[in-house]
Order: sequence, then structure tokens, then C-alpha cells
Amino acid sequence: MQLVSLDDIRTAADRVRGEVLRTPLLSAPWADADRPLWLKPENLQPIGAFKLRGASNALAALDDRTRRQGVAKGQGVVAYSSGNHAQAVARAAQRFGVPAHIVMPEGTPQVKIDGTRLYGAEVVLVPLAERESTAFRLVDELGAALVPPFDHPDIIAGQGTAGLEIADDFPDVELVLVPVSGGGLASGVGTAVKALCPNAAVYGVEPELAADAADSLRAGHVVEWPVADRARTVADGLRAQPTELTFAHLRAVLDGIVTVTDDEICEAMRVLATRNRLIAEPSGAVPLAAYLHRSGELPRGRTVVVVSGGNVDRAMLADVLG
Amino acid sequence: MQLVSLDDIRTAADRVRGEVLRTPLLSAPWADADRPLWLKPENLQPIGAFKLRGASNALAALDDRTRRQGVAKGQGVVAYSSGNHAQAVARAAQRFGVPAHIVMPEGTPQVKIDGTRLYGAEVVLVPLAERESTAFRLVDELGAALVPPFDHPDIIAGQGTAGLEIADDFPDVELVLVPVSGGGLASGVGTAVKALCPNAAVYGVEPELAADAADSLRAGHVVEWPVADRARTVADGLRAQPTELTFAHLRAVLDGIVTVTDDEICEAMRVLATRNRLIAEPSGAVPLAAYLHRSGELPRGRTVVVVSGGNVDRAMLADVLG
Repeated sequence: MQLVSLDDIRTAADRVRGEVLRTPLLSAPWADADRPLWLKPENLQPIGAFKLRGASNALAALDDRTRRQGVAKGQGVVAYSSGNHAQAVARAAQRFGVPAHIVMPEGTPQVKIDGTRLYGAEVVLVPLAERESTAFRLVDELGAALVPPFDHPDIIAGQGTAGLEIADDFPDVELVLVPVSGGGLASGVGTAVKALCPNAAVYGVEPELAADAADSLRAGHVVEWPVADRARTVADGLRAQPTELTFAHLRAVLDGIVTVTDDEICEAMRVLATRNRLIAEPSGAVPLAAYLHRSGELPRGRTVVVVSGGNVDRAMLADVLG
Repeated sequence: MQLVSLDDIRTAADRVRGEVLRTPLLSAPWADADRPLWLKPENLQPIGAFKLRGASNALAALDDRTRRQGVAKGQGVVAYSSGNHAQAVARAAQRFGVPAHIVMPEGTPQVKIDGTRLYGAEVVLVPLAERESTAFRLVDELGAALVPPFDHPDIIAGQGTAGLEIADDFPDVELVLVPVSGGGLASGVGTAVKALCPNAAVYGVEPELAADAADSLRAGHVVEWPVADRARTVADGLRAQPTELTFAHLRAVLDGIVTVTDDEICEAMRVLATRNRLIAEPSGAVPLAAYLHRSGELPRGRTVVVVSGGNVDRAMLADVLG
């Protein structure tokens, strides 16, 4: 299997320049002295999550002629997601002038539907079980391109641009903590960081209620968890599981994987809000939860945690802070 | 009266490089199409507010020999503040290896005292009325340098580095909205923006419950408001008033000043949290409140609002969000 390379990620970085925010590293002066901490705030991306990196790279990678033909024929792109990938594809498509159909399950919170429509995408609401089949039907009917949430080299390379920035800004980094769900972000960030900072360790972090990737790495092959089990965690962005493609990357680039509890995730959200004035969604706080509560399982040293996103309901946020 | 110049601000930018975060401009895709909006998130500074810019420039401007002698004799710097200036001077002094005494009024929330001690400063608690006199006594006794919160060219030039970044990143900006209290930030940002983007308008924004600068600009001289009146606004960072030095800058660089209500400030905090995943303190949300509610009094066009700080109690934040 061909893995995404540093060159692929550099190409992606050239393509998405101007489309995604080059997020700064934020210091955390309150952290332990022997393992100083910086945050990579992907929640500050225009759509509030790192997903814009992969989606922008995927849109940019559509060959120009294909894109123009697609627009002329109204084909465009299709994605299915109830989460950050929906808004990411909608915004990237709008920026590239490409029509987008986003398939969302009925019952998706109105705020996410509105957020997706804000970027001019056509939202198609279907029963949860018909989400994928509807997306594939639209691809066929429209002659459109599917933009998958993580299972594609262009997506992995796009997410990897976050790792490229970490390595460029902070070549002396010793530990990078990144959340794992479908594995696109961890695959891309790990590939960039390990290539450019060979002495840095890269650890994945999962909710213990959706620890399928941890199980998979231990077993040496993808271990499936039932959807209902993975759905228990408060970290609603981390309920997917790796594919063969992302799993191959995770095996190659991760030094390990640790898991955290839902209570620890909520505490990390509070710490980000009160100490660094950042709003993280539960999934975005997972790596900091590991920094705070799993130090014994991690190398000590200069640490970067990726705050992957910040799209959280106001009511939930008030509840976590209150 | 000699006003701070663009050159002074450029010198400050060279001095504070590496000490302060070069904050990015964040897009606000939800804004009105005919006046697109970007946020300058100074709440992401290590101490959570723009004040680190001025304090770092003031510390850097202390002549090297003075600084070394000061350290040898334990003199260092003194500041009085119960707010963001306290942590800013404490952190800047720590970074420059200079001892710092920070005079705070009794009753200052413990979190702010702890935040100041985190950077190694000596906190001196005194009754509110003795704050200034204690600071001046310490300056005399220690032979230390006073770092004022806004009434000094080095402070104004330091705060102006935020304006320099806006002009560098976004030369086509048409309107900059900045909060006004003592006027250091508005003076510095206005000076930089007007020098580099002569077609941009710069407006100050005040809470209507502490609109002394608006009154002063109308009157053409500094109009004093009683402390008790200024203390009513929820924007606790905007209760100071301009001095002759900052007022002279405000007259020179501001195109106007608008005021907002406390309710509008709280709504702007909610918008920043839910739409841009930023935690602002009330003072930091004041410019966005003007964008949202005073469009009729402002030029239309490409707008930057300075989110000046994010140090807000968790309970208050939960209350505003809930």
C-alpha cells in the first residue's frame, strides 16, 4: 500500500495556502516546567476544525478541467457527514466555485445544517441508515466526485499540513498528541512530524469509550467496534474508525496510543477555556486530557497538543463550564 | 506634545518579537457580505490580552545597563493594576530576568493574584485607595522603574504593534474597531493603521456606561467621569480614562467613537464564543458589539475588530453563554 509522503503533504500545503488558516502555536505558561506545552488551535479555522485542510486539498486536487466541466454540468462534489467534514467540504467547494451536495442524517442539529448552507451547499437530509447509499447514488446521478472524510490520500495529505506547520514552527518538539477517529489527522500529522522531527514522538489519543484504534494497533489489524459502542463517548467527532489506508499510516507513524475518560475530556475543555481562552469541542480537548492525566504513559518534554476543533453547542459548553 | 510615530512602533515590533504572539486575522464567514469581518484575537496572547505588547516593549526599552544594575540591586520594575496589566508586566519582567513588584488592591480575585504570581512577581496587596501611593513609594525605596498601564510612549508604541500587524496582513482594510479605556491600545493601533492604510477609518468603541472618551472627543479636552460612574459597566477592563498623552493621540488618529450597551457587549461575547470559538472578556467584545449594533454609525467595508482580551471568570462566562 502506498503511503502519503512528506512531498504529498508539501504539495497539499502549497495548494491550501490562502484557503486555511496557518494556525499559530499558543504557549501554555501554566503547564509543567519539565514538559512545556503548546497548543495547535485548529478550532480557529474558518469552519472551526482541521477538516478544512483535507477538504481544501481534495477540492484543489481535482484537476482544473474536471472542475470546470463539473461546474458546467452541475456535477460538483458530494460528501456525507453530520459533523465538521460537512462544513469543510461546503466551504472548500464554495471557495473553488464548485457545487456541493452534503448528505446529512435526519435529526442533525439545525445549527450544523445552517452552518453547511451558509457556504452555499445543497443539504440532503435522509434517514441515518441511508446516508452512504444516498451519497453514492448522488455521485452516480450527478457524475460528481465523492469527498470522503478521511479514507483518501488527498485528505490525509491535507490534514498533514497541520503537522508540517508544527515541525516548521517548532523543530525541537519532543511529543505531539493528536486525536484519533478515522485516523486522517493522526496519519497526516504523524507523517509530517516523523519525517521532519525524527526525534519527536507522536502519540494518538482516543476516548476509552471509542478505543477501537488502540485495540487495532495492539492486535496489528483493524478491530471493529460496534457503532453503538463507539457512539457512547461525549467526543462526538471521534466515533469513526480507521480504514485499511489510515490504519497503515497509524502503524507506521504513531509511537503509541493512549485513552482518556469522558470526565477527563470535559475537564480538559474547562482548562482550555479558562487558561487559554479557547473553546474546544470534546474531540478537540482529547489530546490535552492525555497531557493532563496520562503523563505516566507518555514521554516527557516539549509537547504540542492538537486542539482539533471547537464546534460545540452553546448549552453543552455552558454546562461544562458551569 | 510629541506623539508616538510609526517608527517608534516598528522599533517596538522588533523588540517584542518572540515575546508576544503575532496574532492571525480570523475570518468571520457569518458576517454581512457588504462588510466582511476579521477578528484580531489578542485574547490568544500568553497572558490573554494585548497588554503584553506594551509591557514587553517597556521592559525591552529599559537600557541594558539599567536593567542589569537593577537586577543586581533587586530594583526591577513596579506596576499597579488589578487587571491584565499586572500579568503583562509580571510576564514581561520574568522573560527579561527583572524582578517585579505588582501592587494590587485588596479584594482582587484570587485567580488574578495567582496569575500574576505564576510569573514570579511579588504581589503587594493594599487598600484600593493606597494603590498608587504604594507603587510610588516602592519605586522610591527600590530605585525601581514604574511601568504605567497606558500613559507612556513605550506602552503606546508596544500596543501599536497590533496595528502594524493588521496593516501588514490586510493592507486593504477599510475600518478598524478598537476599544478605548485609558487609550493606549487605540492610540497605538490608530497610529499604525492610519500611517500605513491612509484610506482606512479607525473608530474607538466604549461602553455607554463609561463613555468618558466619547465625551472628551466631543468637548475637545479630557472630560473626567467619576470613578463610581465608570465602574458600572460590565466591561471591567474599560473603566480607566485617557490622559493628556493618550487623548492627544486619540484626537489625531480616531475618525470617531461609538458607544455600546452592556447587553450588546454580552451578546457580542456569545457571538464570539459560538461563531468563532473565542472566549472574550466583556472589554474584548466591545468592538464586535459596535459592528453588530452600530452599523449605521460606521463606514461600511472590510472591517477588523480587535478582540483585546479574554480574561473572564468561568462563572460569568457560563452565565453569558447559558
